[in-house]
Amino acid sequence: MTAASVTRLLAALPDRLPGLRALYEDLHAHPELSFQEFRTAGIVADRLRRQGWEVSEGVGGTGVVGVLANGEGPVVLLRADMDGLPVQERTGLAYASRATAVDGEGNEVPVMHACGHDMHVTCLLGATAQLAAARGEWRGTVVAVFQPAEEVGGAPAMIEDGFLDRFPRADVCLGQHVAPAPAGFVGTRPGPVMAASDSLRVRLHGRGGHGSTPESTVDPVVMAAAVVMRLQTIVSRETGAAQTAVVTVGSLHAGTKENIIPDTADLRINVRSTATVVRDRTLAAVERIVRAEAAASDAPKDPEITRLNSFPLTVNDGPATSTVMTAIAGVFGEERVFTLPQTLTGSEDFGVFGTALGVPSVFWHFGGADPELFRDIDPETLLTDGLPETVPANHSPYFAPVPDPTIGIGVTALLAAAAAWLCPEDAPAPGGQED
Amino acid sequence: MTAASVTRLLAALPDRLPGLRALYEDLHAHPELSFQEFRTAGIVADRLRRQGWEVSEGVGGTGVVGVLANGEGPVVLLRADMDGLPVQERTGLAYASRATAVDGEGNEVPVMHACGHDMHVTCLLGATAQLAAARGEWRGTVVAVFQPAEEVGGAPAMIEDGFLDRFPRADVCLGQHVAPAPAGFVGTRPGPVMAASDSLRVRLHGRGGHGSTPESTVDPVVMAAAVVMRLQTIVSRETGAAQTAVVTVGSLHAGTKENIIPDTADLRINVRSTATVVRDRTLAAVERIVRAEAAASDAPKDPEITRLNSFPLTVNDGPATSTVMTAIAGVFGEERVFTLPQTLTGSEDFGVFGTALGVPSVFWHFGGADPELFRDIDPETLLTDGLPETVPANHSPYFAPVPDPTIGIGVTALLAAAAAWLCPEDAPAPGGQED
Amino acid sequence: MTAASVTRLLAALPDRLPGLRALYEDLHAHPELSFQEFRTAGIVADRLRRQGWEVSEGVGGTGVVGVLANGEGPVVLLRADMDGLPVQERTGLAYASRATAVDGEGNEVPVMHACGHDMHVTCLLGATAQLAAARGEWRGTVVAVFQPAEEVGGAPAMIEDGFLDRFPRADVCLGQHVAPAPAGFVGTRPGPVMAASDSLRVRLHGRGGHGSTPESTVDPVVMAAAVVMRLQTIVSRETGAAQTAVVTVGSLHAGTKENIIPDTADLRINVRSTATVVRDRTLAAVERIVRAEAAASDAPKDPEITRLNSFPLTVNDGPATSTVMTAIAGVFGEERVFTLPQTLTGSEDFGVFGTALGVPSVFWHFGGADPELFRDIDPETLLTDGLPETVPANHSPYFAPVPDPTIGIGVTALLAAAAAWLCPEDAPAPGGQED
Amino acid sequence: MTAASVTRLLAALPDRLPGLRALYEDLHAHPELSFQEFRTAGIVADRLRRQGWEVSEGVGGTGVVGVLANGEGPVVLLRADMDGLPVQERTGLAYASRATAVDGEGNEVPVMHACGHDMHVTCLLGATAQLAAARGEWRGTVVAVFQPAEEVGGAPAMIEDGFLDRFPRADVCLGQHVAPAPAGFVGTRPGPVMAASDSLRVRLHGRGGHGSTPESTVDPVVMAAAVVMRLQTIVSRETGAAQTAVVTVGSLHAGTKENIIPDTADLRINVRSTATVVRDRTLAAVERIVRAEAAASDAPKDPEITRLNSFPLTVNDGPATSTVMTAIAGVFGEERVFTLPQTLTGSEDFGVFGTALGVPSVFWHFGGADPELFRDIDPETLLTDGLPETVPANHSPYFAPVPDPTIGIGVTALLAAAAAWLCPEDAPAPGGQED
Repeated sequence: MTAASVTRLLAALPDRLPGLRALYEDLHAHPELSFQEFRTAGIVADRLRRQGWEVSEGVGGTGVVGVLANGEGPVVLLRADMDGLPVQERTGLAYASRATAVDGEGNEVPVMHACGHDMHVTCLLGATAQLAAARGEWRGTVVAVFQPAEEVGGAPAMIEDGFLDRFPRADVCLGQHVAPAPAGFVGTRPGPVMAASDSLRVRLHGRGGHGSTPESTVDPVVMAAAVVMRLQTIVSRETGAAQTAVVTVGSLHAGTKENIIPDTADLRINVRSTATVVRDRTLAAVERIVRAEAAASDAPKDPEITRLNSFPLTVNDGPATSTVMTAIAGVFGEERVFTLPQTLTGSEDFGVFGTALGVPSVFWHFGGADPELFRDIDPETLLTDGLPETVPANHSPYFAPVPDPTIGIGVTALLAAAAAWLCPEDAPAPGGQED
Repeated sequence: MTAASVTRLLAALPDRLPGLRALYEDLHAHPELSFQEFRTAGIVADRLRRQGWEVSEGVGGTGVVGVLANGEGPVVLLRADMDGLPVQERTGLAYASRATAVDGEGNEVPVMHACGHDMHVTCLLGATAQLAAARGEWRGTVVAVFQPAEEVGGAPAMIEDGFLDRFPRADVCLGQHVAPAPAGFVGTRPGPVMAASDSLRVRLHGRGGHGSTPESTVDPVVMAAAVVMRLQTIVSRETGAAQTAVVTVGSLHAGTKENIIPDTADLRINVRSTATVVRDRTLAAVERIVRAEAAASDAPKDPEITRLNSFPLTVNDGPATSTVMTAIAGVFGEERVFTLPQTLTGSEDFGVFGTALGVPSVFWHFGGADPELFRDIDPETLLTDGLPETVPANHSPYFAPVPDPTIGIGVTALLAAAAAWLCPEDAPAPGGQED
Repeated sequence: MTAASVTRLLAALPDRLPGLRALYEDLHAHPELSFQEFRTAGIVADRLRRQGWEVSEGVGGTGVVGVLANGEGPVVLLRADMDGLPVQERTGLAYASRATAVDGEGNEVPVMHACGHDMHVTCLLGATAQLAAARGEWRGTVVAVFQPAEEVGGAPAMIEDGFLDRFPRADVCLGQHVAPAPAGFVGTRPGPVMAASDSLRVRLHGRGGHGSTPESTVDPVVMAAAVVMRLQTIVSRETGAAQTAVVTVGSLHAGTKENIIPDTADLRINVRSTATVVRDRTLAAVERIVRAEAAASDAPKDPEITRLNSFPLTVNDGPATSTVMTAIAGVFGEERVFTLPQTLTGSEDFGVFGTALGVPSVFWHFGGADPELFRDIDPETLLTDGLPETVPANHSPYFAPVPDPTIGIGVTALLAAAAAWLCPEDAPAPGGQED
Repeated sequence: MTAASVTRLLAALPDRLPGLRALYEDLHAHPELSFQEFRTAGIVADRLRRQGWEVSEGVGGTGVVGVLANGEGPVVLLRADMDGLPVQERTGLAYASRATAVDGEGNEVPVMHACGHDMHVTCLLGATAQLAAARGEWRGTVVAVFQPAEEVGGAPAMIEDGFLDRFPRADVCLGQHVAPAPAGFVGTRPGPVMAASDSLRVRLHGRGGHGSTPESTVDPVVMAAAVVMRLQTIVSRETGAAQTAVVTVGSLHAGTKENIIPDTADLRINVRSTATVVRDRTLAAVERIVRAEAAASDAPKDPEITRLNSFPLTVNDGPATSTVMTAIAGVFGEERVFTLPQTLTGSEDFGVFGTALGVPSVFWHFGGADPELFRDIDPETLLTDGLPETVPANHSPYFAPVPDPTIGIGVTALLAAAAAWLCPEDAPAPGGQED
């Protein structure tokens, strides 16, 4: 790649950053739950239109798709996700969220951009602005996808809403995620980059009664506790060191009062895995344990196990990933681009687009944490030792990427990656190509 | 006792039963949460006034007190409690509750008379009607107490609202509770009749994060499960066969989504005990275990343990209990009156009145379950073997005393017991007296 | 009873106490495992013969029976048990045991009289000496039974060895046990006095392998731990306050090395209960939990559950118990004889004799702990609050009754009880008789 | 490498295989525990001497060292370990072990070559025979180390016994281990190849007593079960997917009888880790949990935590590993030599020699399982999905490498690797060198 084309694509970015920062703070202050991103989608559509993009709203619920056709050339899909999470923000930021919303079960819950999707929207709107403003620097078509409801696997809703037929078919799909790594660094890997994720709802049936006469009941709270303790053994005893599985009981709810033994207990369980065989085995073990613990309690009724959602493995195309990493390293320097040593346990539905289109995908992570937090840490050890406790991770009530330099990095990475296809002098053939 | 006076007190009861049954069904269909018994209190006050009682409303919140002075003689306090519970009724009765209410934490919850307080109100209003209608048959003063919020220990609120000064000071306090025993039977015992009850709220502090990276969190769901499993050992290993303790975790709530590890988990724990030394030891063990399990999890912050409420031991005065049992047996026959072999694990705040007044109390249980359910059961074994599974216990979503003969039995027991003091020819000296 | 006859029976006791104390210390220093009581039985037979009793040895293995016929009159069976336990004594006494023996599984184990059977033998030999020496004071026949192997339920072995036919058939069976109560006190109760006891051996099957690859194994250590934790819920959640059950896992053995996951884990479980319905339910729950936890672990083979031994409920005959308590109170004073408020959770096979003979039994406890340890304790609270931690209980490595006054009390209690039948002026009719 | 030199080194191997097979079966039938390898060491020394090696016995206990100086050239250390394990063999082989031995705690235990060290000894004796027989084909010195007690970390005993001064200082250390992979395949990796291993003995202190009165005890069986369940959470919740930790409780022993609650419970715990930070964190977590669970039980005394042994990370030198893999692939073909994708969780003390000498080490694995067992399995999946259940792993009672072709492969791999240094035409400079 000649740095020249990317340099020109990026030329006006510094002037645009103050506005993007204001946008980011506004989005952060107004998070919306999955499939409820009405305000966010409105802002996105409005900005895209003003930038000169052809805009479709309400794609797959609250999704927005912008198309910018700019002559012959490859079609590049750039994707951001828009939804927040039911988390009570505790960052103490001036622009912290105070939003609440009614969730799918009718409960009013706090809402927070605890996964950084506000950053994703901001960066993609920054990239679309640059692309629209510098049409002379590139050729082809860009499809900017602002997806709803990534947290609950909303990508299929866009596909089911005619995405493949309604918009130019992309030659490559590009996406990114902000991570609790130092701002300024980018990482990815060819092959499986993010884990499969399967979520279950388990309702355990006991038999309620008065808290003073447990002998006339089957206590679902004790049953649930035994299930939780036993589920730990799937990872600790049934998963080898060469395999990856994570089993999290993210929510456990039972009972209303201290002296009434309830009839049921509800668990929500999330399973991560990076290989199909481990995934199958782990899901089978969860069910085996849930049923056995119900039997141990002499439950009057079998547990109900319901699939909530499933995210497939996110798999990066090898040559396209090499192209993207080279392009980004060309801007940031080799020392700021890492090959991840293994599949991350986080999950994504980004891969749904590439799979549906039958084209290569590349998904990368860019750091959003204050680099000062890492001042005394050997960056190499981050890959093996994990995050220091002082750095809030995604979904934490304290998670908030620093706007500067994260926004600039995110916009630049999108543009550099897209330019590998869109800038004629060095665009690879569709499907990616090793340099 | 001469059966004569009681017989005359009871004379018109059969005519009154259809109306009491309608009242009971109405109350059952319209349960109210603790301290929200506005509708119930209104009905009580209205009925009492129409019967000719002097009525005070709003005593200790929503309490109602009726006074009927009928010449020289002992002052007898009769008490019923009025509140329902946040339970979703599942009886399928025509008059089943469909009520909901907003609880103390702002949540809308279903409400049900799952503890039979509707029966208590009905029986006491039946008794007050008979007393008012048959003033010639007795002498003295009756104080009819319709107490709010028994489920959360509301009796002290009435005492704090000037109860001792505002109403005639009773010589004896009488109360009753409907039980999942066959309708037609009454049981009690001298000495401790109901357990002490202490309720705690425990907030466990973990450190939240993404469900895929548990290593950067302290998982409060696992911490809570370990606490629940460990709490079982207080009863199984630390409580002797000669002692009674019950430790129930009635509610456990943590998290909102399957893939977010929450920051905290909240438990509500109820402890029953029938001796002070066991009570102290059990409460200390709960705290010890909660703190140790937090330490085992490396919790970033100590658990918060808050006392929610405490019910004292309910202790029946020996001679007064003998008087009451004799009086009731005089009406129902000896074979229908049982001495309970030991303290029940249920709790009550009825004892607060006798303790505050410094006078004897007697509290008894009367069966409310369909006798058909017990057809093949040796009644003796009920006292040792516990309730058959087919009989719903108090606080169950299926608990609903059969109106007939329960209402008649409950009214009769109150009148027979009160008559032991109020019917001059055989009233004992205040304070109770063995025959 | 006239104190006179008992007084004369007891006349020479003070002179005999030093010899009995030496005997006790010798027996204590030389404990023998169940059915291995060869030395003890030899001493017993030798002493009985020298006292003038007709002696049979080897009854039911190592049992000894002495018969002393002394004219017309009731036949009274007095029983002591002889075996020690596989416990490493830690009393630090000069006469502490240093014995070892090979147990039934071929392991060499330490042996200790940790249950006080040495005291039982000593007291019964003291009583037989007095009875032989004071034949003029009583009439009838005494059958002195020195039973082997009480710890493993050895009484049936004597019955199966022709006990009923070989020895005079008793009219009443009397037995006693030393307890961790203050020396000088005696307690018992009519009806169930000691619990039923059922012991199980559970072998859990996992699949062994290297400690570094648990995923290729089924870890029986984790399976066993889950079983132990879950068994706690039988008592804590499935047993009512009106019921008594105790579930103890007394032994748990699995594995040889830290880095080899073994194939199996072995548990030994003891269940106590004081009512048949609770016993049946508890044993069923143990099996249910063991099988369910094996299923939760995906065990390659069902657990093996083997019955080790069963002790029936020990039930005291009502009138005979009254006779015995009155007789003992006549010597010690009423204030030293307690009615136990409930069935003890300890178990005995003493009841096997009365049941086989079809005659009344009475079994009582006598204190053996240094009264100084109870100086600051209200004796009433002992019955409800349990033993202070400073007093070692039966089966503890620190359990050792103080010889003085325990031996004198134990001999006296046996003689006073027997005299109620044997001393003609006040002997009740066979079968016991309330005074 | 020219295959020529290795080919000549291997020339007579086919004739030697029947004898090596007989040796292997003899060693397999006569396993010996760590530091008790007297018979094995005798056979080794005898064979080496007859082959013409200079032999030292009793090095570091039962170790044997053979030295063969063959002119100027590099010094190559070849190492095999000799000890068996306390496992009851269940292979059903004609030459299965029936051996028993007395372990370090005085217990008689079965012994088995469950880790394949018999194969290691056989292969190294095959290699030494070839080296001695074909001195014309190589130049330099070989130090053949037959190490005792690998299972308990015996290598340091040889170092402490003057190994560095007594024998020629090697330029490179080579070792191998038979694995449950298909016979015919070899695998290794540069960098960390085997995990660190730390073993702990934990004694939990309760307070014993009678099984029927748990309330007067602190039950160490329940305490141990709670510890085991809680330890699972270290791997399941505190270890990230990018990290490796294994925590195994390989042995748990408490109590002697079902109705005696013991004073103590003993656990043996093994911790594997592949990074220092994870190792430190995991060991700290084990201690934290053990202490907290003792506190939860109100233990009368702190747990005792004793370090049993520690194995360091086994780290392969990068260039030397490349040399070895190339050399072995030169004989077997590239398709039979795999680069392991990650550090194995097994541990070794082989690395102690290279570390003490300050020279490069290479350690590789060679398959010993019947290839038929893998007929339907994609070899690629073995690296991620783990071993099929039908293939017994090391330390299993069913583990037994097939003699043919495993012995031939093991001898050949040792010779091919050694030849990379010893065969002049292509020997790298000491320290290893990439081709």
